[in-house]
Amino acid sequence: MTTSTDIIPVLDDSVRVASGVVRILDRRVFPDTVSWVEAADAEAVAEAIRSMVTQSSGPLFAAFAGMELTAQQVAGLEPGVAIERMRAAGAALVAARPTNIHPHEAVHRVLAATDAALSEARASGAGDAATTAAVVEAAVESAHSGARLYRERSRRLGAATAELLPDGARILTHCWMDTYLIEFVRAAREAGKRFDWVATETRPYLQGARLTAHTLAEFGEHVTLITDGMGAAALAPGSTIGRIDALVTAADRVAMDGSVVNKVGTLGLAVAASAFEVPFYALVQAPDAGAPTAADIVVEERDPAEVLHTLGRRTASTLVTDAWYPAFDVTPPRFVSRIVTDRGAFEPARVGEYFASGETAAAPDSAAPGAEAAR
Amino acid sequence: MTTSTDIIPVLDDSVRVASGVVRILDRRVFPDTVSWVEAADAEAVAEAIRSMVTQSSGPLFAAFAGMELTAQQVAGLEPGVAIERMRAAGAALVAARPTNIHPHEAVHRVLAATDAALSEARASGAGDAATTAAVVEAAVESAHSGARLYRERSRRLGAATAELLPDGARILTHCWMDTYLIEFVRAAREAGKRFDWVATETRPYLQGARLTAHTLAEFGEHVTLITDGMGAAALAPGSTIGRIDALVTAADRVAMDGSVVNKVGTLGLAVAASAFEVPFYALVQAPDAGAPTAADIVVEERDPAEVLHTLGRRTASTLVTDAWYPAFDVTPPRFVSRIVTDRGAFEPARVGEYFASGETAAAPDSAAPGAEAAR
Repeated sequence: MTTSTDIIPVLDDSVRVASGVVRILDRRVFPDTVSWVEAADAEAVAEAIRSMVTQSSGPLFAAFAGMELTAQQVAGLEPGVAIERMRAAGAALVAARPTNIHPHEAVHRVLAATDAALSEARASGAGDAATTAAVVEAAVESAHSGARLYRERSRRLGAATAELLPDGARILTHCWMDTYLIEFVRAAREAGKRFDWVATETRPYLQGARLTAHTLAEFGEHVTLITDGMGAAALAPGSTIGRIDALVTAADRVAMDGSVVNKVGTLGLAVAASAFEVPFYALVQAPDAGAPTAADIVVEERDPAEVLHTLGRRTASTLVTDAWYPAFDVTPPRFVSRIVTDRGAFEPARVGEYFASGETAAAPDSAAPGAEAAR
Repeated sequence: MTTSTDIIPVLDDSVRVASGVVRILDRRVFPDTVSWVEAADAEAVAEAIRSMVTQSSGPLFAAFAGMELTAQQVAGLEPGVAIERMRAAGAALVAARPTNIHPHEAVHRVLAATDAALSEARASGAGDAATTAAVVEAAVESAHSGARLYRERSRRLGAATAELLPDGARILTHCWMDTYLIEFVRAAREAGKRFDWVATETRPYLQGARLTAHTLAEFGEHVTLITDGMGAAALAPGSTIGRIDALVTAADRVAMDGSVVNKVGTLGLAVAASAFEVPFYALVQAPDAGAPTAADIVVEERDPAEVLHTLGRRTASTLVTDAWYPAFDVTPPRFVSRIVTDRGAFEPARVGEYFASGETAAAPDSAAPGAEAAR
């Protein structure tokens, strides 16, 4: 029998550093077309993030890869120049998109490691060549371990989510939870549970129809696709789609008041779930200690032309010129049942206990990632 | 200056009887392609309704046209045969789609007129030729007057809706209100009011992006397009799209308990509007006296393949095989602010007063159309 851990969905390995470039699977056209964008430097990686070649967890792996590539490129340079190049690369990656904080966390992790390596080398009286080599090695190691840690934390998050749901539960999900989804499925199977899925297509980029539904199918999970407007009808009592047991989405950011910032459309589903007494679980590795409320989180607005088109083809009347495309929306805590983190599930009003719990639990990292985000 | 009544949007004249056929504008591809389906008999008209060549108010005009065409085709036949052919045509039109009751109302009106003409001719001792001629004339007249009446009632409905909104109000609408929308815009302008519009694209058929936004633009109204998942974000306080003053949609059917049956997606918008204290006005000429509750209304499920495609192109992963496509959803009365009819606006719980009010108001027709629907 094939176990879940034997299956590696294509999207689970979609950012790679090889032959002096970062290769990023182009999620804008996947799975219709499987093509890889090659980024020759960190700026090109940032541009790929900005233009949605990759999103969700993708920018985290892309940012780590961009930092690793830069480290390779500064090998042999004078240490001060090398560090300067690493910092410039980090700044470009962080600036790519304002709401997704993953590149920020990745860059911070790598730069902290390179700073430490530099100080240590200088303190030990190492020469320039050895110092740069130590900086490069620290950057590559921290990028690799950071990516690994993200997967491990996603697995814990997935396990905590699976605990909330019985075997056979039917889950409505929105957009693309990426590594969270993949590790959630794996954790559920480890716990002896299988779920049944309903996925929204998630216009305008159709991540649900293309990425989520595809990946679930790769895992052999049963998934039913709906359009974005059908969520409330699916959640309502007596729906012909059958009972939905939970709404489960990722959260791009969770403020300390329990507000959930996630792909636009999450709010409408959460409000409907609340109205029809279906629990809503929002998944995030850690809340954002730097954001007391959702007002402290910038919600990115993207090119409205995307709303007028579907996969590059004009689908709105050409008489229509105005559209609105907020990439995310904010779900107030009153519509959220639980924030599920790598340290377990919290009521939204008590999500601040995540950090308290980290002091006693086996923390996955010395610094809480939410605290990193705050810097 | 161009006044609203000078403007006739293409979709305002999209069903025509000419040269022995019914010509129906193909709304599945409009406005990208302007093509007309030619139906040579009532069965072909029914098939056009079933396959979504026309929808919303379209099936009403198509059913009247189908009955008119059939009347032309039975001219010269023996009266009993002529009536039988008319009845068969009516049965085909009524059976086309289960939730939209317009063809039922249209057919009932025409058959009532032909029955009356037949009785009258027979009572007056007319011969077969004169009797059939009277039946044909009655059918054509009742089809024409029925279509005219529908427009007049839509105008009254539009005027009643305009009364609820201040000049400059911003309206969120869903799917395609068709004649209601067109007459609402005209009535508002007659009342010296202009509105600003936000339209959902309305997957899977994109009626909002193609029909609503196009028609509003033809009128010179300002419209902003959003995807179906953005409605709640637009309705939420502090949205960057600006304040929405009301959610306004048509209703395909309204049960006597105030439940609103309309294009799938309406429920989610209504729940969000209720959560964020934005009024929801559902427009219908009359509630459905034959449906005490929404459970008495059949909600059509359509081919799920539509969800996997966008305008004929596969947009979901080919690994995905299951989808769900309820054409309509049911909004419980607690999420509805007012049912607006051609006799004014009613609280949902009091929509039964529509019929009482008809006894004192200048009723547009001798029989209440909702009562017709009940037969």
